[in-house]
Amino acid sequence: MDDIQARWVRGGTSKCWVFEAQDISKTGFTADTLLPRLFGSPDVRQLDGVGGGTSTTSKAVIVERSSRPGVDVDFTFAQVGIDEPVVDWGSNCGNCSTAAGLHAVELGWVELDDEITSVTTYNTNTRQTIVQRIPTPQGAMPGRMTARIPGAPFSGYEIGLGFVNPAGRTTGHLLPTGQAQQTITVGETSWRTTLIDAGAPLVLVEADALGLTGYEYGSWSRQVTDHLPALDRVRRAAAVAMGMVPAPGDAERAVPKLGLVGSPADENADINVLMLSMGAPHPAMPITGSVAMTAAALTPGTLVDDILAARRNAADGITEVADLRLRTPAGVLSTFVESTGSDTIIGVSRTARTIARAVLPIPEPEQADSVVRRPSMAVEGAS
Amino acid sequence: MDDIQARWVRGGTSKCWVFEAQDISKTGFTADTLLPRLFGSPDVRQLDGVGGGTSTTSKAVIVERSSRPGVDVDFTFAQVGIDEPVVDWGSNCGNCSTAAGLHAVELGWVELDDEITSVTTYNTNTRQTIVQRIPTPQGAMPGRMTARIPGAPFSGYEIGLGFVNPAGRTTGHLLPTGQAQQTITVGETSWRTTLIDAGAPLVLVEADALGLTGYEYGSWSRQVTDHLPALDRVRRAAAVAMGMVPAPGDAERAVPKLGLVGSPADENADINVLMLSMGAPHPAMPITGSVAMTAAALTPGTLVDDILAARRNAADGITEVADLRLRTPAGVLSTFVESTGSDTIIGVSRTARTIARAVLPIPEPEQADSVVRRPSMAVEGAS
Repeated sequence: MDDIQARWVRGGTSKCWVFEAQDISKTGFTADTLLPRLFGSPDVRQLDGVGGGTSTTSKAVIVERSSRPGVDVDFTFAQVGIDEPVVDWGSNCGNCSTAAGLHAVELGWVELDDEITSVTTYNTNTRQTIVQRIPTPQGAMPGRMTARIPGAPFSGYEIGLGFVNPAGRTTGHLLPTGQAQQTITVGETSWRTTLIDAGAPLVLVEADALGLTGYEYGSWSRQVTDHLPALDRVRRAAAVAMGMVPAPGDAERAVPKLGLVGSPADENADINVLMLSMGAPHPAMPITGSVAMTAAALTPGTLVDDILAARRNAADGITEVADLRLRTPAGVLSTFVESTGSDTIIGVSRTARTIARAVLPIPEPEQADSVVRRPSMAVEGAS
Repeated sequence: MDDIQARWVRGGTSKCWVFEAQDISKTGFTADTLLPRLFGSPDVRQLDGVGGGTSTTSKAVIVERSSRPGVDVDFTFAQVGIDEPVVDWGSNCGNCSTAAGLHAVELGWVELDDEITSVTTYNTNTRQTIVQRIPTPQGAMPGRMTARIPGAPFSGYEIGLGFVNPAGRTTGHLLPTGQAQQTITVGETSWRTTLIDAGAPLVLVEADALGLTGYEYGSWSRQVTDHLPALDRVRRAAAVAMGMVPAPGDAERAVPKLGLVGSPADENADINVLMLSMGAPHPAMPITGSVAMTAAALTPGTLVDDILAARRNAADGITEVADLRLRTPAGVLSTFVESTGSDTIIGVSRTARTIARAVLPIPEPEQADSVVRRPSMAVEGAS
């Protein structure tokens, strides 16, 4: 039985298996065939493989040294199907992006700096360059991991993910309708929105417009339930307005995402946000969503800029927003903005650590028995 | 950061991480401290470790070469806590037992036979000797895995688990009340039961007594819902009758288990059984439950013997039951019985395969942030 090397990384709030492209080539299988079998798909539990039976734990990253000028690592994100033996190559995962930077540092693909090592990575799914910054004091990975992020219960190595010139990757324009605010009319209701494309296309709506109040953990998430159908109609109409699809019914469930924004009651965050993902409140924040939010903060006249301007006016001491602090249900996260030459980099800090360095036996291809039980039922007693 | 070697095995319908005892000793941590941290506990998702966030995927087996006469491998099963950083050492897992046999064969701890290699393993949790039989044609593991069991969607290596003299391990007697059938009275209702202790203590009740009919997938599981409270009272009264606890309220939730039995409508199985575990229908069958069922089949006058006798009388061709075929919700599984000298071995075939050979970095001990979200909410969109 053949083997393949792989590393398991907790990247941000996801678990990601990292493979080198040349190792996959050597197996004689395509990644579309190999990954589902290694992960144990199709099977809702992924019992017979390295997958974890949830979308956040059925992810892979394929890395290789890049031949692109100025790029260290090319990487491709694979969302491995769970109940189907398929791979979705349609998007990147910001969390798993950290695995590419960590791989380059841990395997010596880049020379380590005395303070902070930069790894320039290129995501092939989205053609997005992401500069990753990893603290390497005295030219080495720190002996202890001490960085934390909301949504991950233990520490990891800090990895700054800087999206280089993220504007307009999907639609061609930062503001696809040319307007910083755009009225979207659904039925007889008009909605004030900001439609922005940076990292990923995003629809922003004011929480005030829905009467949402109080941002202690979960309050918006609960109050928003009754508004979900209406907000999905806004999201679909916005997809049309952004030129992404010809009709609302054609919009994908996952793209564009929609975020509700509001002004915090305290000084520990700059803006409150609740993201809706696949029709439900997101427990934290997709990384591309935080990039788009930051781009909106930098763009005069957007809903985010309005909220920040009001806060700047209210509190004399506060001036420009260099780092944006986003309050999400899981906690406050900060983004950063850099300009280098003609490039604008919008970034967010994540943490990552290697959970396992492994060799995976490759079983013969075979038809799976159908195992349709839900995970919650499939409890085998310790016997 | 220190490392530890580990192997990940899909054993039966569980996923089990296998560690060698000497490797754990070398880390300077106890297994009670080390395993939860490696698994990512406490955290309902076990995001930062090798655990899978469910009871069937948060299991470890610690193996070492045995110094006991006639025993090849000692192994200890660890049920690793998920939302608490603790390890439960109170029981064995039949499924993960296969990982001990597979480890011995794959690492050359035993000499391989030309046909079937026997590995004598000793489970320290239950002080139970389990003889494991693994087909090794031409003195090697087969090039292809072809064995299947209900509840596992892909093939594995066949591993026969033979429990040596399993009778009376908990209560001291195969029939703890001295009777093959025992009337249990709860309130004003009397129940005909068989109370048997082999592999684990088990309470058997006739499905007929509850009016359960039809054993197509799931029908008993659905019909039994209304009877669950009454059956739990029977189970608790039976625990008292077996001398396990002084009063019904003292019975554990997991032990003894209760099984509903009935006569199949066809010739593809010898007996239908639905196990209840932790107050709910079990989707398949705990291995110790199938050992107890087989012991009941071998014991004159038990409910199982009655059902089999009626079938033998009904169909002239059928004589003794050498192998018992149990129909479970997940499919039909077979047990086997052997007598060697003064020993009785009751066994069941499982399959297993190595998913990963790994090295796990050991993070520094630290306090986890509380992450209390349920797994179903913690979906991070591919971003």
